[in-house]
Amino acid sequence: MRLSRRKFYKSIVVLGFFLLLTIFITNLYLSLFEAEEKYEQTKRKLEALHSYFDKFHNLSYPISYSLKFYEKYNQLPIIYIITPTNNRVETQLADLTRMRNTLWLVPKIVWILIEDSTFKTPKITKFLKESQLSYVHLSEQTPDDLIIRSNEKTWSKPRGVLQRNKGIDWLRENSKDIDSNGVIFFADDDNTYDIRLFEEIRYTQKVSVWPVAFVGELMYERPICKNGKVTGWFRSWGDSRPFPIDMAGFAINLRLLLAHPSARFSNLVQRGMQESHLLSHLISVNELEPKADNCTKIFVWHTNTRKILRFGEKRLQQMNLKYDQYILDQV
Amino acid sequence: MRLSRRKFYKSIVVLGFFLLLTIFITNLYLSLFEAEEKYEQTKRKLEALHSYFDKFHNLSYPISYSLKFYEKYNQLPIIYIITPTNNRVETQLADLTRMRNTLWLVPKIVWILIEDSTFKTPKITKFLKESQLSYVHLSEQTPDDLIIRSNEKTWSKPRGVLQRNKGIDWLRENSKDIDSNGVIFFADDDNTYDIRLFEEIRYTQKVSVWPVAFVGELMYERPICKNGKVTGWFRSWGDSRPFPIDMAGFAINLRLLLAHPSARFSNLVQRGMQESHLLSHLISVNELEPKADNCTKIFVWHTNTRKILRFGEKRLQQMNLKYDQYILDQV
Repeated sequence: MRLSRRKFYKSIVVLGFFLLLTIFITNLYLSLFEAEEKYEQTKRKLEALHSYFDKFHNLSYPISYSLKFYEKYNQLPIIYIITPTNNRVETQLADLTRMRNTLWLVPKIVWILIEDSTFKTPKITKFLKESQLSYVHLSEQTPDDLIIRSNEKTWSKPRGVLQRNKGIDWLRENSKDIDSNGVIFFADDDNTYDIRLFEEIRYTQKVSVWPVAFVGELMYERPICKNGKVTGWFRSWGDSRPFPIDMAGFAINLRLLLAHPSARFSNLVQRGMQESHLLSHLISVNELEPKADNCTKIFVWHTNTRKILRFGEKRLQQMNLKYDQYILDQV
Repeated sequence: MRLSRRKFYKSIVVLGFFLLLTIFITNLYLSLFEAEEKYEQTKRKLEALHSYFDKFHNLSYPISYSLKFYEKYNQLPIIYIITPTNNRVETQLADLTRMRNTLWLVPKIVWILIEDSTFKTPKITKFLKESQLSYVHLSEQTPDDLIIRSNEKTWSKPRGVLQRNKGIDWLRENSKDIDSNGVIFFADDDNTYDIRLFEEIRYTQKVSVWPVAFVGELMYERPICKNGKVTGWFRSWGDSRPFPIDMAGFAINLRLLLAHPSARFSNLVQRGMQESHLLSHLISVNELEPKADNCTKIFVWHTNTRKILRFGEKRLQQMNLKYDQYILDQV
């Protein structure tokens, strides 16, 4: 009986052992199965996301373009784009819309828009907010005696001087919070920009320069360059200008601008001397950095938008018709 | 001896069994470990790709915009954008550059660009190729007697008629290979487009209409709409026009256009009657589909680019200076 009892206990122990072993192995199997399933699921998700990405990469130019900047995005210097804008120009919102479409394609910029107005208008406030760009909205009114009348030549008085200075002042006042590796570019709202321009500008060490089309009463003006230095200028007028260059033809390193508090534009200088006035504070010609393949590529056109014909408004009155203000506010 | 031998074999079997069991369990453990590791790795990759995506989503407007269309991309009707372009206009390449910047943001379009020329110029060929857009490049020259001279009003002769017809002909000739759910839009290269316009256009069933700014010598013209029908027109001239609407103010379903082989533009119709001439072949006013929030939103501006002043070229000659042809070709 003793032996049989021992045998019984032994059997129980062996049985128990095998039972535990079976449970243990089953659990192990289940864990393995689970882990493999999780892996397969995640793998499928990863593949889906990859194909999502690849497809997009193929189908959308802006995406494949933006992807180029992704890896080094945090290191990219910010481009501060200073744009004076004027609501006396009927095409203001059209011009800004076109410029916004272009700026949407440029990574890491801050658009500093300065209205020629005593206050920030609701129209531009709405426009900027809806743009989802990084922006700074400012306003500074041109005094009455400096406003260009419709019977005066567009170049008879300086344009955008106070507004651009307001933008410069904002950068100085906020110098502690902004990207000191950044770059400043004065970009009018009716110019035409090839997006490659902005990547030429981005790594400006002091002041960079490049050709501009449709300025100086020519198809283009440009710095003439040799071995990475500016050795002369292709232009048809204004030999007295130390820097015969358009506003859209240069960019300034932010640190350099901040180091020269007196550098700004002025309403007191002669016609065509704004650029020279500012740059003379900052640099000499032989220090300029030629961009755009030694100043041989056109990446910016100084286009102007034609004035709007409104002869029809007299006929509207005769027909007793009126604009709808809600729609007019969007023009 | 027999029993001890049996005991020995039994021990071997038990030992062997435990050895196999140990190997089996170890393998199972290793598989589990491996599966878990693979899962963790894939999970990390997935998370990285997600954060990559999320970051991009936050930092680039075009990407977040394009993502909206991804899921239904294959189902999106193609918008065929017909653009006549003219190399007698000095700002041609600037205008096209600005339009390209805008079109880069619009998913699933085909840009049909028709040069006013006997051949496809190298300049535009290069421009289109570099744009990486889906495009069709055509050319059709305006006969000498229909070319607008610099001393003639821009509206004194019809513009772009033969070029737009060439675009329409291409669609008819290739009707088997194109998207019959597609839509046709006649978009001039110097207009200003809010990208929302294209998504308004995309699902045109027959002919859709919307307001256009800076046309008809007014700040805007528009169809007046009630309950989704056009009930009148806001305009200051041309009551005789059945469709008092600008070229940029309507889009046509491709199937409808293909069903009417005689529908095209004509050099023989009166000033301002091109749009009415084409649309009269296709539809009646009460069938028009109002877009842009019952024709109360401005998504397109009929801007014009100002002519370029080239007075400086005389001075260039006196200074014995010449344009660089390599650079001039890029302007």
